[in-house]
Amino acid sequence: MSLLEDTVAAIGSLAAPAMAAARERQGMLTKPPGSLGRLEELAIWVAGVTGEPVPRPLERRAVVVMAGDHGVTRQGVSAYPSAVTAQMVRNFAARGAAINALAQGVRARVVVADLGVAADLSDVPDLRHHAIAPGTRDMARGPAMDRDQARRALERGVTILEEEATCGLDVVCSGAAPEVVTGRGTGLSDAGLRHKAQVVAHALRLNGPDPTDGLDVLAKVGGFEIGGLAGLMLGAAARRIPVVLDGYIAGAAALLAATICPAVRDFLVAGHRSAEPGHAIVLAHLGLTPLLDLGLRLGEGTGAVLALPILDAALAMHSSMATFASAGVAGADVAATQAESTA
Amino acid sequence: MSLLEDTVAAIGSLAAPAMAAARERQGMLTKPPGSLGRLEELAIWVAGVTGEPVPRPLERRAVVVMAGDHGVTRQGVSAYPSAVTAQMVRNFAARGAAINALAQGVRARVVVADLGVAADLSDVPDLRHHAIAPGTRDMARGPAMDRDQARRALERGVTILEEEATCGLDVVCSGAAPEVVTGRGTGLSDAGLRHKAQVVAHALRLNGPDPTDGLDVLAKVGGFEIGGLAGLMLGAAARRIPVVLDGYIAGAAALLAATICPAVRDFLVAGHRSAEPGHAIVLAHLGLTPLLDLGLRLGEGTGAVLALPILDAALAMHSSMATFASAGVAGADVAATQAESTA
Repeated sequence: MSLLEDTVAAIGSLAAPAMAAARERQGMLTKPPGSLGRLEELAIWVAGVTGEPVPRPLERRAVVVMAGDHGVTRQGVSAYPSAVTAQMVRNFAARGAAINALAQGVRARVVVADLGVAADLSDVPDLRHHAIAPGTRDMARGPAMDRDQARRALERGVTILEEEATCGLDVVCSGAAPEVVTGRGTGLSDAGLRHKAQVVAHALRLNGPDPTDGLDVLAKVGGFEIGGLAGLMLGAAARRIPVVLDGYIAGAAALLAATICPAVRDFLVAGHRSAEPGHAIVLAHLGLTPLLDLGLRLGEGTGAVLALPILDAALAMHSSMATFASAGVAGADVAATQAESTA
Repeated sequence: MSLLEDTVAAIGSLAAPAMAAARERQGMLTKPPGSLGRLEELAIWVAGVTGEPVPRPLERRAVVVMAGDHGVTRQGVSAYPSAVTAQMVRNFAARGAAINALAQGVRARVVVADLGVAADLSDVPDLRHHAIAPGTRDMARGPAMDRDQARRALERGVTILEEEATCGLDVVCSGAAPEVVTGRGTGLSDAGLRHKAQVVAHALRLNGPDPTDGLDVLAKVGGFEIGGLAGLMLGAAARRIPVVLDGYIAGAAALLAATICPAVRDFLVAGHRSAEPGHAIVLAHLGLTPLLDLGLRLGEGTGAVLALPILDAALAMHSSMATFASAGVAGADVAATQAESTA
């Protein structure tokens, strides 16, 4: 089998015994059951992903930002010229981008990968060079890439995950730059937005991707960085590493990964709801409710790393709170009985 | 004048020049304008609070948790007996509560204050002793406290803020325990919830608080910890220290503070939307949109400290991102023009 098939074959399901033990522990902590809402769910989820009833802190953390150019930008569907992709990659490497500022604050390393930027980036320090081609072809005139390129994009994502796991990786955030989608992306006018929607509709009609075939969708209307991110997610799921999704592009990559292997969804959490329209639909398809809703539409992984402190809080609460027994506090059962008898 | 009037007199407005400078800086950073949504608003807001166009990190941080018992619990309106308040205070002091776990993760010190718990807490280490009385009177039979007690609760909140400011305080989170409100609070049954709503409606009819007179509302249907939190907020606003609100009790205290001094609102941000019903109404009255919505209904300040990393991220982004000029990246204006001409 190839790397892609091997990876998919290694993806299991959430560890039910660890989750049951984590759920039981939650009921013993000095708080009314359920009163910490999603923090409780997150702690139980990480237990299921890692197989540890009381997971250790997620200390080794990376945000992987993948970049690639899209041939369809020739149709004028982005507010930024294609050259901006390369400039942004250089800005990531120089640590001047938003993701650098946010990742530093949560002690996440920033891993930037070129999956197919239409520029020579050989001089950029610390860049992971995984370019498939200098940008995809124009999907308004035919498939964005061929099927072999789609497979290679996915497998390079797996490879990047494997490399990071070798360095040590407890949680991975997925990001992409720039965002090229059917919304305003990062700064499109009303007229530009209408044109973009027309171009995308035309490309879908022209290419007729098979929605049940992930490789076909990726090849016909995808992008190299979307394939790379999907591969990253499959690789993380195979190694039981929790994945925090950023916005629209990461969501699209997650849909692609779930088409290839539905079980991957169990290993994903949505960091935030993007201000990009349509993201809510993507999340609903994935069955994910985002942790944050702060009106972000930048990409880069910003909405994913912002969610890391919430995961941290969930695990800290789960591991370090006192139990009713240890603290000598009356539990909910006893107390509720007393209150009812008074009422 | 008294401490309360002195404090109110010292409350100013947001610093418009610092906010204008911060807004201008946001437009120069290497991202499309507005693409970081609320992070941008938060950075500009902190500039307005502190008067610094590029605010320093909010390093010295405290969550102040105030506790008090309510005479109305004799009517059986809480899922927990009154003794639980004292047990929870001891759990805070022993660092076993949820707020301890969450505060440690964001490097916030936990300050626990007794504003009127119905128990002897003289042996609890590090507790701030500011008890007005061993619990309020039963508001179902008359005013919860007299007007002088209400004033003292407010002033003790100011005093606690002053003490913390002396230690160094860049941001303060407000919390209370336990939550005694018209929702389920921390674990009430359906029958208990109906009873509680009846008791509250009765107390409002009986006491007839004047909604334009903060001291009257506090005295008739408030609690010592609510007065203390309102005083804390007034004190923070007077010193231009940003306040992060926790859930329902903190929201009620903020309404009280805003009744006494409307300008206090400018210095508040809502950490989260509580799962306690009615919190949304409180926030709407305050004109605040919460940063998080994670289904929390514990209190203790948990929903406030969870929001600190978002403030941190906003300020890190604001201070450390590259500008278009410094990074050599094409700005939005240039890029949009190019894209439009292609379209």
